[in-house]
Amino acid sequence: MASKPAPDATRRSEKSRRAIYAAALSLVAEAGYPKTTVEGIAARAGVGKQTIYRWWSSKADVLLEAFLDLAEQTARPAGHDGAGHDGAGHETAGIPDTGDLAADLKAVLRATVDELLDPRFDAPARALAAEGVVDERLGRVFVARLLEPQLQLYVARLRSARDAGQIRRDVDPRIALELFVSPLAQRWLQHTGPITYDYTDTLVDYALYGLAPR
Amino acid sequence: MASKPAPDATRRSEKSRRAIYAAALSLVAEAGYPKTTVEGIAARAGVGKQTIYRWWSSKADVLLEAFLDLAEQTARPAGHDGAGHDGAGHETAGIPDTGDLAADLKAVLRATVDELLDPRFDAPARALAAEGVVDERLGRVFVARLLEPQLQLYVARLRSARDAGQIRRDVDPRIALELFVSPLAQRWLQHTGPITYDYTDTLVDYALYGLAPR
Repeated sequence: MASKPAPDATRRSEKSRRAIYAAALSLVAEAGYPKTTVEGIAARAGVGKQTIYRWWSSKADVLLEAFLDLAEQTARPAGHDGAGHDGAGHETAGIPDTGDLAADLKAVLRATVDELLDPRFDAPARALAAEGVVDERLGRVFVARLLEPQLQLYVARLRSARDAGQIRRDVDPRIALELFVSPLAQRWLQHTGPITYDYTDTLVDYALYGLAPR
Repeated sequence: MASKPAPDATRRSEKSRRAIYAAALSLVAEAGYPKTTVEGIAARAGVGKQTIYRWWSSKADVLLEAFLDLAEQTARPAGHDGAGHDGAGHETAGIPDTGDLAADLKAVLRATVDELLDPRFDAPARALAAEGVVDERLGRVFVARLLEPQLQLYVARLRSARDAGQIRRDVDPRIALELFVSPLAQRWLQHTGPITYDYTDTLVDYALYGLAPR
């Protein structure tokens, strides 16, 4: 009995797509962004260059989708389902809203700690982040596609908390989220201190209740 | 009347030292850290390679001192005197303590905004920061020598505020400072948002008084 052609083609495409993502991530981790090429990705993935250009227009495009896919892969086992992507860059859901803002923020930040410490994520993400520091145009593209959609989930959760009277009415959620997100980002980017659950829990408590006595 | 030899030699050394710093900073900004060499710095500064090796043991050493010197140069006109260095890496003074913690922190952060937006600082500092993201050993050396001494000035100011009853007793100053320092650092490193005085003023207010209603 002949198998139907469509599912086989889909499986073949899916297998190639996975091989291309893996090749792109390992190459950028080893060689850095400037030395990563579409030719190099194709060779490592065992596909023709044209296979890549059929689906993506540049190495930046391949890497963007590889990272969106990786975030989905690494987030899942960490129980990070709430702040994930569907692999095509669309947000799947927001940060959980149990009514306990501190607990919800701590849970998501603990999942982010797991992701940052995951070796599958660390090396390629560092290579890309380093390039974004010196190449503003590339940095802005990656932030807009990879980072800002995640930050907007915090914005939505903080707005909901504001509506519930748990956040002051005059607080700008887009700035407020930086009080607990940016310290973790800086420790990861610049090696300025250890990254632990205790640390991110503390950031949430300090941000919500402030440093000054109440 | 013959001039005394010692001051002349000092002036000559000082002039070479300045030329070497300027060459190191412009080279790293243009070529990036990996492609910057002691030979290249010497050629651009118009000195022999041995002149550099007489004073420094590596390109990392030259760059460290060039940045300490640059921080002093760019900080001065911005009225940043409080959190400067003496050019040899020693702290000269702490953050001003007028008794008004919010005002003191806002003043220092506004001076940091000026420094980050200064084109003399921006390109070489980005080249070095980018390398620190992917080269942990180098990143840690530069953080320990350039960044951490500045952060310790915030620690001292927050301790003094804690003694004055303006900061809660259970607050760890080394973590607390990250609530207003790290957001600025992340916006600068990753281009995640505009860098303005209004922004850093807001960070200080949010950090001190918290996001939750009082």
